Amino acid sequence: MQDIDYMQEALKQAKVAYLMGEVPVGAVVVKDGRIISKAHNMKESLADPTAHAEMIAIKKASEALKGWRLSDCTLYVTMEPCSMCAGAILQSRMRRLVFGTKDEKAGACGSKVNLLQHDLFNHNVEIVDGVLESECSGILVGFFKLLRESKCVENKFIAER
Amino acid sequence: MQDIDYMQEALKQAKVAYLMGEVPVGAVVVKDGRIISKAHNMKESLADPTAHAEMIAIKKASEALKGWRLSDCTLYVTMEPCSMCAGAILQSRMRRLVFGTKDEKAGACGSKVNLLQHDLFNHNVEIVDGVLESECSGILVGFFKLLRESKCVENKFIAER
Repeated sequence: MQDIDYMQEALKQAKVAYLMGEVPVGAVVVKDGRIISKAHNMKESLADPTAHAEMIAIKKASEALKGWRLSDCTLYVTMEPCSMCAGAILQSRMRRLVFGTKDEKAGACGSKVNLLQHDLFNHNVEIVDGVLESECSGILVGFFKLLRESKCVENKFIAER
Repeated sequence: MQDIDYMQEALKQAKVAYLMGEVPVGAVVVKDGRIISKAHNMKESLADPTAHAEMIAIKKASEALKGWRLSDCTLYVTMEPCSMCAGAILQSRMRRLVFGTKDEKAGACGSKVNLLQHDLFNHNVEIVDGVLESECSGILVGFFKLLRESKCVENKFIAER
């Protein structure tokens, strides 16, 4: 399997998030060619600001490996990680990050800052971006469009009552 | 109660971590003068790279408030948060951070970078540092000294066998 295949798995997770009304981001962690954890964003469902797809995937991967060092692992995630998730990638000593679409507003792996290749920290992570970019971006665009439309419907409904 | 009193509570949590063999960092979250969550570092015990005191305290505070927005809350933590925890503080929209001692190696709230007062992100957090600094620093220094000594003893023991 190649990067594109693992990203397909992350994208499936993003679709699960979409169907739950969560911002559709999915992630998988891979070690030695094997997917050891899968997760999707659960922030609203769990009412937990830390429940991003990457955080849950990293936690589950540590459970699978019975240790917090994910040194030989790659994290695949459909959207560029925020500073919290980039920090968790550093904490876990992850070797490699592959993401789909950039997050121009809050991305901490190249867009706003790049915490993973920062001279000041003692761990650097290889980054590959743009894998299945249009699919990963498309699901987010579709979600936010639907969210805006549903709010219009809701507001209209409220106005009519 | 004042900042110093809440930091005393965070310090008690750090002492629990110490006694578990964890890097001794403790945290509490306060809303309207009331402590709504307490936590200490559990990284080694849970084998989870995300199990820092701040992360667990934020998660528990969200559970207590039944929502992920901690807009009117203050996080007290004995050591300056890393980039992961600073990111979680941003994600939770925490209003204020009070910490004890700086982390010159990996601190992301002023030492290495300052993610909480960064022009590029859409949320800024008020920071107060140096509250009970010598106590918060002292417990860390003591822990690492003991850890080094225990390793010397272990190595000597191994050499003697």
